[in-house]
Amino acid sequence: MTQVLFALSDPARLDIVRQLDSGPLEMAQCCLSDPTMPKSTKSHLMKVLREAGVIRNVAKGRGRLLSLRRDDLDARFPGLLASILKVAPEA
Amino acid sequence: MTQVLFALSDPARLDIVRQLDSGPLEMAQCCLSDPTMPKSTKSHLMKVLREAGVIRNVAKGRGRLLSLRRDDLDARFPGLLASILKVAPEA
Repeated sequence: MTQVLFALSDPARLDIVRQLDSGPLEMAQCCLSDPTMPKSTKSHLMKVLREAGVIRNVAKGRGRLLSLRRDDLDARFPGLLASILKVAPEA
Repeated sequence: MTQVLFALSDPARLDIVRQLDSGPLEMAQCCLSDPTMPKSTKSHLMKVLREAGVIRNVAKGRGRLLSLRRDDLDARFPGLLASILKVAPEA
């Protein structure tokens, strides 16, 4: 539980989750809130989200496909993701 | 939002919130999950929770009274606290 909350407690990571809320995205299409962020930082953000069980990151062609593990999260923590995603990004 | 999630993303802090879920507690009555934790660490945990707007910490006699800011949290982040508190502590 705390690992998931921690993964979502960073603005850049939460922004990624918001993007994936509309559906899976290729890694290259997933934009960072700060476009100057190095690629290694982007990989690290994805790693934290993946290890916490928030996203799936699978090989697809020459890239990676990212998706939100909504069903797993809803099963483990009912209502948590919905309550977080319904709050406006600036709040 | 991320500040609240961060405050709740630590097992010791989340445990304090669970205790305050039953009602306000004096600082001295609020137990830590790890009883060997120094008093300064306890104060710091309370500070993080207070600064994130999760708890209120007011002087009461010679001690401090801690309470959960449930109404404020429910107004800002509907459903968030409930979804977090209904998950078993060990999850």
